[in-house]
Amino acid sequence: MKVSRRSQVPPFSVMQIIAQARERHAGGHPVINLCAGEPAAGASAVVRQEAARVLESGDLGYTQSLGVPQLREALAAHYARWYGVEVDPQCVAITTGSSGGFVLAFLAAFDVGDRVAVARPGYPAYRNILVSLGIEVVELPCGLGTRFQPTVAQLDEAHRRSPLAGVVIASPANPTGTIIDPLEFQAIVAWCASHGVRLVSDEIYHGVVFEESQPVVTAAGFRDMGAITVSSFSKYWAMTGWRIGWLVLPQDMVATADALAGNVSLCPPALSQFAAVAALSEQGYAAAQVDVEMYRLSREVVLDGCGRLGWSRVAPADGAFYLYADVSGSGLDSVTWCERLLVEADVAMTPGVDFDSEAGRDWIRLSFANRPEVMREALERVISWQNR
Amino acid sequence: MKVSRRSQVPPFSVMQIIAQARERHAGGHPVINLCAGEPAAGASAVVRQEAARVLESGDLGYTQSLGVPQLREALAAHYARWYGVEVDPQCVAITTGSSGGFVLAFLAAFDVGDRVAVARPGYPAYRNILVSLGIEVVELPCGLGTRFQPTVAQLDEAHRRSPLAGVVIASPANPTGTIIDPLEFQAIVAWCASHGVRLVSDEIYHGVVFEESQPVVTAAGFRDMGAITVSSFSKYWAMTGWRIGWLVLPQDMVATADALAGNVSLCPPALSQFAAVAALSEQGYAAAQVDVEMYRLSREVVLDGCGRLGWSRVAPADGAFYLYADVSGSGLDSVTWCERLLVEADVAMTPGVDFDSEAGRDWIRLSFANRPEVMREALERVISWQNR
Repeated sequence: MKVSRRSQVPPFSVMQIIAQARERHAGGHPVINLCAGEPAAGASAVVRQEAARVLESGDLGYTQSLGVPQLREALAAHYARWYGVEVDPQCVAITTGSSGGFVLAFLAAFDVGDRVAVARPGYPAYRNILVSLGIEVVELPCGLGTRFQPTVAQLDEAHRRSPLAGVVIASPANPTGTIIDPLEFQAIVAWCASHGVRLVSDEIYHGVVFEESQPVVTAAGFRDMGAITVSSFSKYWAMTGWRIGWLVLPQDMVATADALAGNVSLCPPALSQFAAVAALSEQGYAAAQVDVEMYRLSREVVLDGCGRLGWSRVAPADGAFYLYADVSGSGLDSVTWCERLLVEADVAMTPGVDFDSEAGRDWIRLSFANRPEVMREALERVISWQNR
Repeated sequence: MKVSRRSQVPPFSVMQIIAQARERHAGGHPVINLCAGEPAAGASAVVRQEAARVLESGDLGYTQSLGVPQLREALAAHYARWYGVEVDPQCVAITTGSSGGFVLAFLAAFDVGDRVAVARPGYPAYRNILVSLGIEVVELPCGLGTRFQPTVAQLDEAHRRSPLAGVVIASPANPTGTIIDPLEFQAIVAWCASHGVRLVSDEIYHGVVFEESQPVVTAAGFRDMGAITVSSFSKYWAMTGWRIGWLVLPQDMVATADALAGNVSLCPPALSQFAAVAALSEQGYAAAQVDVEMYRLSREVVLDGCGRLGWSRVAPADGAFYLYADVSGSGLDSVTWCERLLVEADVAMTPGVDFDSEAGRDWIRLSFANRPEVMREALERVISWQNR
């Protein structure tokens, strides 16, 4: 019997690396895994304690489809705290991770056959979710010249070819960590608004930023221009397996998202919703910031090591916890490079082809969401392996 | 800016009833709410205790996309225990509730423009999810004559009109509670297999059944004929807000579902997965069965009350915890009937129009997933209200 065409997602190269890494680890090899897009530490004590409290005494039945009011209100306050942006709690939709947020946002905004632009390299799930929903993906090739971010000129050119219905941006981005400059961000917002193109802004790495001089803009401030913000408790608050995220929606999409969410997901996980309220407490922010300070040290280790590694073409790691580096100087494509690095030096990294089917064969992504001493050891291994 | 056409889900009448019920309750009225499709009691102590243990000591990071191996294995054992059916743990895909299971199954099985048949009356999310994914819904009107279940003759007729790609069945069904007879079930399976039509079997109410004489068949035994089983911990194990369910997939869909799930949902909630393993322990089954015995008593209260209520056309409440009854003898349509019942007698029920846009105006659904004394009080109120 047939399996659908739209579900034929290309396999990720990293899955093979991860399987091999697991096998080597089980076989007693001291593998350092820098593949994962998640913090090594988990959720903070204050989050776990609140979850334990609710588990004992609370109602864990269905909640409202768009989430419990106290979390929507706490997130509205979060936008005032971090950005000075006023958000109506009614415009905050709690989702089952940012994954649930993307599915909900894409369904609510785009019809079958619509064209939506995404940057290449980029998080592969944008493309794969969009395609599975019958939406045509328009890739915008981005490189070092534009800090791996799409430009208004690229959008304009793609739109002229055939009208776009939407564009997905990410800042800080995965796999590159680059942040979109505030003026460029506003230019993209304005271009989208004036061309009737829906902007979807992935902000799941907000908070994981390292330079005071680089302000991060939220699309939540541009709701009235039609922008949708997607975010999550997974990265800054390290709540990956809790599957809890949110959208900030334009007012005129809320009723649609509510009805749709009730059908597509019923409601987000109840316990995670209650625990996430604690993540937005003073203690919750403080604990998350401790992790960011650790990533900051680990990032310095990695950036300092680039010279000795001979990596001269790297994406500016403005935020998130990734370094995206060109390893083509090795003479190997990135899949081979990663496979050999694992087998010969017990360090696992992600080949760029998972984020960019074309130029990605020259690039690798490593995650520094780990302790600095682990990063130091990993780099020493790569350096001595490269020098062999 | 446009909102998508495909996301325009018709509003549920029950939402207005629930809002009114909440308002009356807040205003001090002793409202009994029989709208909800969820058990009044929550998850059992053994499940909560296991969650508390994992919360303290466990890793709550991302899990495998199709779920942790121990839960997939425990569910495979569950099929041996309940049905004597052998299931390879690799064919069990853990999902974020049955909602996540339906989205995953529909995406993996059906393309844009495919035709999929559903029974009317039925769970409205089937229809709404399918439409949002660009799939054409073919409604099969079902009534008392076929115990509200579709027949092979109906499928055959719909397929002749224009080929079907799939059919969704539910046994026990929502809103009617009726179970498909084993021979009829096998006939549907065989018809689907011989016509290349994918069968999706909603089995979320399995375990909530009341008559020994009525065996419940699982489609998991017909995996090799292409059938997909959708199930959940929400009903029998009362884990609604935990958002944890599963699929049993044909072998040739597993790789597709795995890749797709990684993109669409990343993974199901980690804590719920670990807790669900405890639901499948001896203590977990025993606790769930205690609730079913309570529903059995409540069901008897309701069935015994039908005579005094003057309800002669009711769906046989074989399983699940619903009674679907024709109230057209009142001279009111079901929406008006429910609104007046709430305002005049403080009992909330669901109008049938949410499950059947046509015949549903004659029918209402009540949930008896509540204590027998609550059901008794509710029925007394309805009877005295009707006699006014």
